[in-house]
Amino acid sequence: MARILTLTLNPALDLTVRLPRLEPGEVNRSEAVMAQAAGKGLNVAQVLADLGHQLTVAGFLGADNAAAFDALFQRRGFRDGFVRVPGETRSNIKLAEHDGRVTDINGPGLLVDAGAQELLLDELARLAAGQDIAVVSGSLPRGVDPQWLAELILRLKRLGLWVAFDSSGEALRHGLAAKPWLVKPNAEELAAVCGPADAEGVDAQARQLQHGGIEHVVLSQGAEGVHWFAPDACLKSSPPRVQVASTVGAGDSLLAAMLHGLLAGWPAERVLRHATAVAALAVTQFEFGVADPVRLAELEGQVVVSALD
Amino acid sequence: MARILTLTLNPALDLTVRLPRLEPGEVNRSEAVMAQAAGKGLNVAQVLADLGHQLTVAGFLGADNAAAFDALFQRRGFRDGFVRVPGETRSNIKLAEHDGRVTDINGPGLLVDAGAQELLLDELARLAAGQDIAVVSGSLPRGVDPQWLAELILRLKRLGLWVAFDSSGEALRHGLAAKPWLVKPNAEELAAVCGPADAEGVDAQARQLQHGGIEHVVLSQGAEGVHWFAPDACLKSSPPRVQVASTVGAGDSLLAAMLHGLLAGWPAERVLRHATAVAALAVTQFEFGVADPVRLAELEGQVVVSALD
Repeated sequence: MARILTLTLNPALDLTVRLPRLEPGEVNRSEAVMAQAAGKGLNVAQVLADLGHQLTVAGFLGADNAAAFDALFQRRGFRDGFVRVPGETRSNIKLAEHDGRVTDINGPGLLVDAGAQELLLDELARLAAGQDIAVVSGSLPRGVDPQWLAELILRLKRLGLWVAFDSSGEALRHGLAAKPWLVKPNAEELAAVCGPADAEGVDAQARQLQHGGIEHVVLSQGAEGVHWFAPDACLKSSPPRVQVASTVGAGDSLLAAMLHGLLAGWPAERVLRHATAVAALAVTQFEFGVADPVRLAELEGQVVVSALD
Repeated sequence: MARILTLTLNPALDLTVRLPRLEPGEVNRSEAVMAQAAGKGLNVAQVLADLGHQLTVAGFLGADNAAAFDALFQRRGFRDGFVRVPGETRSNIKLAEHDGRVTDINGPGLLVDAGAQELLLDELARLAAGQDIAVVSGSLPRGVDPQWLAELILRLKRLGLWVAFDSSGEALRHGLAAKPWLVKPNAEELAAVCGPADAEGVDAQARQLQHGGIEHVVLSQGAEGVHWFAPDACLKSSPPRVQVASTVGAGDSLLAAMLHGLLAGWPAERVLRHATAVAALAVTQFEFGVADPVRLAELEGQVVVSALD
C-alpha cells in the first residue's frame, strides 16, 4: 500500500438528470437526479483507494457547496487537503433523455485568486510529507495561469515526489515543460500540444517527450488501447470489447491503475495488462472505482499486450 | 415576537441555471448556477423571521442532500425539527435563457414511508410546545396520503395551536376537512376543490368555508389583490403595480405577513394592507424575505384596502 496525493485544481459537482424527453420552455419531470462529487484527480483517487492505497486529496474547492465533496472524502477515507475558496465549485449538469440524447450544461466554476494559489503552494510541503506519488490531474479554474501549474509540478518534484500529470491544452503544454515523471495524454490532447500527426506521428511525439526527460509517457487511445513508452520497454495493449455504460473517467482509471502497477514493481507487461483491464471495467460502469475484482480478472485475461515496433 | 412552527412536507432544492441559449443535445455553458433550499413552509418561515419571529421548521428532508437546508437553518437561526428520510430531497432545476424562456425540470422527490410519517406525528408534541401558530404549507411527497395530512392538522389543533394551511388539490381538500384556523388558497386552487366558479362564485365558496368553521379565508388573486373573509370583517386589497422579478413565493409572503399582523393584534385594515405590500415586495425580488423596510413602507402606502360587498 502506497501513500498518494492527488491534486484536483478544478473539481466539479456532476448532476445527472434522467428524463423521458427534454422540452425546452416547458415544465419537464425528471425521473432521477444524481449528484456526484467529481474531478479527474478525485476519480483517480477513488480507483487508487479501491486498489488498496491511502489517499490525500487536495486542490481548490468552493466553500458554498462542499457538502457532496466532504461526504465523498469521509466515505472513502480521504485525507482532505483542499483549499476552500469563496463561492461554488462549478456544477456540470447532464440531461440524459430516453433516446440517448445528452445535453450538457457546464458551469463557469470558481475564480481562484492569487492568495488561494499561494496558500496551496505553501501547504504542499505539509501535504507531500510521507507521500510516494503526486497526481496532478484535470483543467485549471479561472484565475489560475498555466505557468502556476508548472511551478506546482516543480515544487512537488523538489519535495521528492514522483509526479504523474494529466491535463490538456495550455495546462498540458506548461505542465510538460516542468518534466513530470509520468504523463498520460490521449492522442488528441498530445496532437493539440505537439502539432497534428497521424498514429505513427503521435507515437513519435510521445517518444520525443520521453527523450526530453519524462520517464513514462502513457498514450491512451480509447477502444484502440494504450501505447506505453517506459524507460526499459515500449508496449501496446488492446482492451477486450465491452458494453459501454460511460466513458467518463476511463482515462483516470487507466492512470490510477498504471500507478498501482508501477508502485507494486510489477513487470511492465503485467502493469499494462492490469491497467488496460481496469480502464475497460471503468467504461462498463457509471461509478468510479474497482468494485468487481472477479470481472476485472476476466477482463485482464482478455487484454492483449505486445511490443511496440 | 411570536414562536411559530412551519411544516414543509415536500421541500425542494431549487437550482437556477442562467445560460444564453439552451441547445438540446449540445454542450452548453452556463453563466451562473444558484442553489436554494426551498419549499413553501420554508419560504413562509424566512419572511416571518425577517418580521421578527422565532421559527421552528419541520417536515421531511432527504438525508443525502440536506447541506443547503442545514446552511439555511443555521443562517436564519431556525430550530430544525425535520425528520430525515433516506434519499435525496427533490431537485427542481430552472434553466433561464437570455430571451426569458424558462425550462423547468422537476424531480421525483422523496418517498416517505409510514415509519417516517409516524415519527413526525410522534414529534409534534415536542415541536409544538411553546408555539403560538403552526403553518402547514405545500404539496405532499410520494407515499403520503392526503388523509394523513388531515390527521396532522387535527393533532396540531389538539395541541392547542392555531393552524394556518396552504396547499392545493387533494391535499387542500383533505386539509380543509380538518378545519384549520386559516387557509390561503388562490382562486384557481379553491375552484379546483370546490368546483368551477366565476369571481363572485369563488367569493361565495370562500364564505362557505368560513361558515363551515374555518375562521380566516385569505383568497389570493395575484395582481388582482386579496379577498379576506375574517370573523369580524370582509376586506379586499389592491396592490400597487410593481416591476416583477419572480412571482415564486409571493403567496408564501402574503401568508407570512397575514400571520404577523394577526399575531400583533392589528386592526384588520392594517393587517391586510401590510400583508399585501409584503407580497408586492416579494414579486420584485428573487430571494425570500423582507430585506428593504423602506421600500416596504412605500408600497404599503400605495395599497388600497376596501370592504368587500
